[in-house]
Amino acid sequence: MVRAAGGVVAEDVDRGEVSLGRKLAAEGVGTFLLVFGGVGAAVLAGSRVGALGVSLAFGFVLLCLAYTLGRVSGCHVNPAVTLGHLLLGRIHALTAALYTVAQAVGALVGGMLVYVVANGLPDYHRETDGLAANGWGEYGPHQAGKDGFGLGSAIVVEVVLTALLVLVVLAVTDKVADTALAGVAIGLTLAMTNLVAIPVDNASINPARSLASAPFQEDAWGQLWAFIVFPLLGGALGALAYAGLFGSKRPATP
Amino acid sequence: MVRAAGGVVAEDVDRGEVSLGRKLAAEGVGTFLLVFGGVGAAVLAGSRVGALGVSLAFGFVLLCLAYTLGRVSGCHVNPAVTLGHLLLGRIHALTAALYTVAQAVGALVGGMLVYVVANGLPDYHRETDGLAANGWGEYGPHQAGKDGFGLGSAIVVEVVLTALLVLVVLAVTDKVADTALAGVAIGLTLAMTNLVAIPVDNASINPARSLASAPFQEDAWGQLWAFIVFPLLGGALGALAYAGLFGSKRPATP
Amino acid sequence: MVRAAGGVVAEDVDRGEVSLGRKLAAEGVGTFLLVFGGVGAAVLAGSRVGALGVSLAFGFVLLCLAYTLGRVSGCHVNPAVTLGHLLLGRIHALTAALYTVAQAVGALVGGMLVYVVANGLPDYHRETDGLAANGWGEYGPHQAGKDGFGLGSAIVVEVVLTALLVLVVLAVTDKVADTALAGVAIGLTLAMTNLVAIPVDNASINPARSLASAPFQEDAWGQLWAFIVFPLLGGALGALAYAGLFGSKRPATP
Amino acid sequence: MVRAAGGVVAEDVDRGEVSLGRKLAAEGVGTFLLVFGGVGAAVLAGSRVGALGVSLAFGFVLLCLAYTLGRVSGCHVNPAVTLGHLLLGRIHALTAALYTVAQAVGALVGGMLVYVVANGLPDYHRETDGLAANGWGEYGPHQAGKDGFGLGSAIVVEVVLTALLVLVVLAVTDKVADTALAGVAIGLTLAMTNLVAIPVDNASINPARSLASAPFQEDAWGQLWAFIVFPLLGGALGALAYAGLFGSKRPATP
Repeated sequence: MVRAAGGVVAEDVDRGEVSLGRKLAAEGVGTFLLVFGGVGAAVLAGSRVGALGVSLAFGFVLLCLAYTLGRVSGCHVNPAVTLGHLLLGRIHALTAALYTVAQAVGALVGGMLVYVVANGLPDYHRETDGLAANGWGEYGPHQAGKDGFGLGSAIVVEVVLTALLVLVVLAVTDKVADTALAGVAIGLTLAMTNLVAIPVDNASINPARSLASAPFQEDAWGQLWAFIVFPLLGGALGALAYAGLFGSKRPATP
Repeated sequence: MVRAAGGVVAEDVDRGEVSLGRKLAAEGVGTFLLVFGGVGAAVLAGSRVGALGVSLAFGFVLLCLAYTLGRVSGCHVNPAVTLGHLLLGRIHALTAALYTVAQAVGALVGGMLVYVVANGLPDYHRETDGLAANGWGEYGPHQAGKDGFGLGSAIVVEVVLTALLVLVVLAVTDKVADTALAGVAIGLTLAMTNLVAIPVDNASINPARSLASAPFQEDAWGQLWAFIVFPLLGGALGALAYAGLFGSKRPATP
Repeated sequence: MVRAAGGVVAEDVDRGEVSLGRKLAAEGVGTFLLVFGGVGAAVLAGSRVGALGVSLAFGFVLLCLAYTLGRVSGCHVNPAVTLGHLLLGRIHALTAALYTVAQAVGALVGGMLVYVVANGLPDYHRETDGLAANGWGEYGPHQAGKDGFGLGSAIVVEVVLTALLVLVVLAVTDKVADTALAGVAIGLTLAMTNLVAIPVDNASINPARSLASAPFQEDAWGQLWAFIVFPLLGGALGALAYAGLFGSKRPATP
Repeated sequence: MVRAAGGVVAEDVDRGEVSLGRKLAAEGVGTFLLVFGGVGAAVLAGSRVGALGVSLAFGFVLLCLAYTLGRVSGCHVNPAVTLGHLLLGRIHALTAALYTVAQAVGALVGGMLVYVVANGLPDYHRETDGLAANGWGEYGPHQAGKDGFGLGSAIVVEVVLTALLVLVVLAVTDKVADTALAGVAIGLTLAMTNLVAIPVDNASINPARSLASAPFQEDAWGQLWAFIVFPLLGGALGALAYAGLFGSKRPATP
């Protein structure tokens, strides 16, 4: 397993003996990087690369994290994904709770650092420009004086697209033989869900991503609950769809 | 086959014993998600991500569905692809008919849900904005006061590009050894065909995708026939090209 | 080799017994599809998807063709690539000549069909709009009243970028163990070379692609020679770079 | 190892006997091509393909180089990546120093050639248009009369994103079994880091890329130091993160 030319390699990881502490570190660092890349692209580059560029940034950073952290922690970096694994019995409830805490901490640090970088722009307005927070109606993304989408639209989009993401994650990681392309499929799924959902509600699909933005944008706290509840609901639906389509013998809910 | 850390895994699917009901569910859910992602991007995000963003949304959602549903139903999610498999004798005629029904149902539900989300936008005009329906001439995509492409252009584009998609699908899925990248090739083919065809006729390449849009757009029913006939003709041509290039012993047409 | 559920599969191809006629058909069909997808995107969709969309169309169509036609003909679909293989002794000179003829025929048919589709647009001007022909100076791509790049710029870009493409093709296809991702690498290389070269001279990188456009655009014949000579020169340079970097025992030039 | 149809193949490379001279040639040629593709896209095509197109050009060229040069030199083409390998003991200090020299030479030749091509545009202004050099404040990228980001923002972005790139490189190349998708993950990571960092400081992430631009742009020399120091600092941080997450037995710093 040790590369000929190498010295220090991932010996512990190779033996499948990854400590819980290291897994939690991977989830924290991974969610931090997901937020720094994805929310960072939205806040720092959104006016230059558009919703398409932001969507690709989210997708590409998750793709590379999947290949990097997948063998350490499974690279959930998303409480909705952790919930999907939990409902299928692939992770213990306590570990899932700790994963979620690590994701939340990583996301908040990521959001804070994007905020620090954004404040390096002289005309950045701390109160109003915010951090690409998720929202609907008057707090959602607007275009040229048009009103934004309503709460109902945001609910449908978050539930359906998070269900798709979790279904993809559960399916492409369930057998060793099919996992080579798993990271590509998972990353490009996130890119696609952002393409659809950014104009609707700035695209959560991940409660941790929503948590990262909310503290830094005026009034965003008031709608944060929806971007925790509905992605998690979508994650549960994705797990249910997986169990139905792939024929589990045991019920997927524990 | 059961993952060490896992509990419920895809046991039935692993043994190759996928029931017809489960296959039809996969085709229905898959076509629903294809429409929700692709048509959803066109309707909800088209003005922000352009024809390029819409093309990538279609391509990425098919890519991830291929890796997710491929081992359940083959992930046709397109009657033209099902026709290609049928002409090569890879699927029974009755199963192909049921696949097509499942695709149509999934597409219609997908179109309906995109319509529901679009109506959450206060200035969405139900009668005229429609759902990115396929069309030509005065019902095709317009740009800045220019007239659209004629029927002849739509026919050539739909036949050639659907033939390409079906040729790719048939070739990259015909041997186990080559299938690792199949989903990437198939997904990016769909993205490319949309890049070319969206300005011509909003890009069908898939009768189910056209069916999903038509009920929700004024006057779109009148041209729907063309986006059923010509993609199917293209699918047959793709199967013929496959048989010619790859040297089948038996004639491809039954 | 025959799939359990299947009927007619690629039996002749599986045994490595591909006839020359079938290889030439693959090169002809492949170059036709490359032109229909790439030049088609430029002509039909260029004003909507920009040079980025056109570049991705070229890249994605080559990617999918590589996975589809690679095991039939090697999927050169480019005389500069065929020249590279010839210089390394991987193909007989007569076969290379026939490949080039097939590529030229396929390209011309592709260009003709794009022209037919473009004429379905009422305000398409046959004489001046052309078919995204390659050119420099007053015949090159212009932006907002600016003059275009000169011949020298076109030469550097065509030689360097075609050398890169041919180096990549020769390297990623030279061993079985590394070929799974070959199509992705080759396709995205073409996308990247187009991103750089489209503003300079509309990006040839492939004499067949240039031949496809020239007959349909006023005055484009006069500069066609450069987009045959310099991509071929680049292809030879790429073969030389391959021989130097990968340590061939025999000189690469025959 | 010799392909049936082939003649000259990569025999020396196949036996793992790559000479240092050939490795240095690969690093030089690779960095040259990275700059010609990435900086070339920024300078020649930036106004047409935007920051998104430039980001994809950087990502795609690194992706194809990884599959092409990876088995010769490891395809570092970036002093920060070489530093990461050095800190983990995967490369000797002297070899690392020579790699860096080869990268610098390749980058300067690449920058010079992009400059030659750019001067083929009649209205290119040698003194002010420059070569997409990295910078901040009044020398950074501006948009519509706005002032650019400050030095602090550039530092955070370069350190965090280069750490991510180096972490990804070290993780996806450390075992043979996982390397098939390594080039995709590495290339798309670079694309993503450029998406975030181009609006901030034109995106270095690679001291060699910064060195390539600086000589050809008025005043860019004054800020070049930062785009050598902070990407290298990020590379060291990435190596540290790798050692922490993957459980090296020995300290990663030598």
